[in-house]
Amino acid sequence: MGDARRVISDLRELAARTSTAAGAQRVAWGPTWREARAWFRAKVGELGLDVTTDAAGNNWVTLPGASTKSVLMGSHIDCVPNGGWLDGCFGVVAGIEALRSYAGGQRPPVTLRLVDWADEEGARFGRSLFGSSAAAGTLALDDVRGLKDRSGTALVDALRENGVELEGVGRAHAELRALDGRAYLEVHIEQGPVLEAAGKSTGVVIGTFGVERHMMRFTGQAAHSGSTPIAMRRDAFLAAAETALACRAIGLRHSKPGAGVVCTVGVVNVEPKIVTAVPGVCEISLDQRALDAAVLAAMNREAREASERAARANDVTVEWQHLWRIDPRPFDPALLALCAEAVTEETGEAPHLPSGPLHDAAEMALHMPTVMMFSSSSRGLSHCKEEDTPEPHLERTIRAFLKLVDKTVAHVAAG
Amino acid sequence: MGDARRVISDLRELAARTSTAAGAQRVAWGPTWREARAWFRAKVGELGLDVTTDAAGNNWVTLPGASTKSVLMGSHIDCVPNGGWLDGCFGVVAGIEALRSYAGGQRPPVTLRLVDWADEEGARFGRSLFGSSAAAGTLALDDVRGLKDRSGTALVDALRENGVELEGVGRAHAELRALDGRAYLEVHIEQGPVLEAAGKSTGVVIGTFGVERHMMRFTGQAAHSGSTPIAMRRDAFLAAAETALACRAIGLRHSKPGAGVVCTVGVVNVEPKIVTAVPGVCEISLDQRALDAAVLAAMNREAREASERAARANDVTVEWQHLWRIDPRPFDPALLALCAEAVTEETGEAPHLPSGPLHDAAEMALHMPTVMMFSSSSRGLSHCKEEDTPEPHLERTIRAFLKLVDKTVAHVAAG
Repeated sequence: MGDARRVISDLRELAARTSTAAGAQRVAWGPTWREARAWFRAKVGELGLDVTTDAAGNNWVTLPGASTKSVLMGSHIDCVPNGGWLDGCFGVVAGIEALRSYAGGQRPPVTLRLVDWADEEGARFGRSLFGSSAAAGTLALDDVRGLKDRSGTALVDALRENGVELEGVGRAHAELRALDGRAYLEVHIEQGPVLEAAGKSTGVVIGTFGVERHMMRFTGQAAHSGSTPIAMRRDAFLAAAETALACRAIGLRHSKPGAGVVCTVGVVNVEPKIVTAVPGVCEISLDQRALDAAVLAAMNREAREASERAARANDVTVEWQHLWRIDPRPFDPALLALCAEAVTEETGEAPHLPSGPLHDAAEMALHMPTVMMFSSSSRGLSHCKEEDTPEPHLERTIRAFLKLVDKTVAHVAAG
Repeated sequence: MGDARRVISDLRELAARTSTAAGAQRVAWGPTWREARAWFRAKVGELGLDVTTDAAGNNWVTLPGASTKSVLMGSHIDCVPNGGWLDGCFGVVAGIEALRSYAGGQRPPVTLRLVDWADEEGARFGRSLFGSSAAAGTLALDDVRGLKDRSGTALVDALRENGVELEGVGRAHAELRALDGRAYLEVHIEQGPVLEAAGKSTGVVIGTFGVERHMMRFTGQAAHSGSTPIAMRRDAFLAAAETALACRAIGLRHSKPGAGVVCTVGVVNVEPKIVTAVPGVCEISLDQRALDAAVLAAMNREAREASERAARANDVTVEWQHLWRIDPRPFDPALLALCAEAVTEETGEAPHLPSGPLHDAAEMALHMPTVMMFSSSSRGLSHCKEEDTPEPHLERTIRAFLKLVDKTVAHVAAG
């Protein structure tokens, strides 16, 4: 059995090497990220294992077993600028500990693989899940070929600086398919408040939410705030406000215990945006998420209807612009059962929750049975230096994850 | 009786001299404004009358009567950048026509005075009603001494370029008090859609709205759009949206036929303003207007209560910041009756409406009986080159205004 304390001390060591006073700085494709990966290589080297890099820049460690059938563990060592000490690297370092628990003993019945996905965050070029989507075969080169960072550096040049040729990243998909992966496991911090609020250290993740992301543009007529009677106004903002509130009501109506959905209006722009003018234009974003594809589709349809009702009621028009969508990725029932067993053995119960944020696991779920485990997040905070999890929660989650690896190895070997 | 057609052709002449393709450019204190005032001086000179300038830069024309008791007519020849051909100068040129109708005949029973107020718009330095508030004694020098325009020119220097010493503008108040003003009349375009929508050319203005202007800042907690269940959110935008809608409902509840009120949320700012984050902060402006001071106070109190209810319901806080307020200025009952008579004689009816925008008349109402008359505005537009009024509407309004002047002269002479 591995040592949960060692995982935590390794994470503290990594944070000390790759953070400033503002937080963690392991942004993909940059020097601090390369330093973090060198540290990873050294840690793995202590186990007598090598790191190999696929065509998309993902780093793989392989512990051969009696069978080529493979159990994969993965996460990402990259982070957002001024990020936390756990997001991503928690799963990578826990994976090292799982390898360590097998590397010292007899040859495992199946092959174990640990992957550090390249650029999960997309913090620099705006494309998240870069490495895992390349491996999953879902990365469209046309969508990313022109990307530049804020300083004007092209993605293609940043990749080349790290030994990755953009035009060749598709080969990572063939490499993945050749691995004979039978299960994918990922442990991560929740990055939300649910486990903490319930007083739980560890949760079984039932899948990643599907997402519908759109902009709505309401167009009415700007008018003088003093001279235009309320009844004669075509106020674009009030139409948007009604729509935003209706979308929340739609979300609450579709939420059931254990199957919550979310929706968010995060961006709001009004024009002409002056104190003495009725807004003639209002633009809002809508981000809707649910684990059930039919529920997500219904939420989206109802939001459109609500926006059209609000537009009519305020004598304005509304246009929708599609930004992005992804299907829900429910996780594998057999692995969910193993995950629940492992969490229950360690903590006495197994709270189930969906993942609102996306993870590399969502890409792997297209190709093999997949499951995730969450550790609680203090105050639900992530993507900031305040990101934290109580150490007893981390320890219990690491122990549960190591149990899950054992159970999955046995499951794949048996089946 | 004056000639309404001549007023319109004079306005066309003034527009041709002081406009570009983008609209009228008679911004106060600038060269085009001075050109417009030179044109005004020449027009008045044709009547054998002189222009005198008071300590605040207001231009006065006096037609002495048998009594020093004076009937004042006023408006402003300045406009916003890229403004329309009627806003302000309509009343000044109509006033010239009223003087012409007396200048040619026998000495009037009371003195007639026409004033072109300096810088009604405040377009360059942000302080509207500059000249009329100086004359009314309500201009606080401490509020304007430091004002600069966008290019960095100080108000004090722009005034000096026009022969006005800021520190001396208070003398304009003593000058006004010396005039023995017994009535103030102002004709203006509505700058709103009410008369047009009712199919009326001309309206009797019952007063200028009082205004309460505030910013509200809602503070909740920014959170990830995917990982934070709806029930655990502290969404500052949704609290603001509920408040904005509640404020409209409050306005509608306080509106009565003939005594409408208005309220506007014109500025909306959310933070962090990203698609994937629940807004942690939302700031909105609220501009409330009513003619009845008690109604305005009630609207404001109810808006505060609504904001506090919405804050509690969304687990956020709200803070109010006062921006500006002004009392309602209801007009004089006797002059309202004369105005209604004049409008009825000319148009067969006398629609009454309040003025949402402020006017120089609001300052004069503090010191003498005051009334305004409105001509319709096409599509309610103003402060833009599309500002317009059908010529038949202008003609009827000019004729009604000339009748109002006659009636007021007789009224003041009689009593």
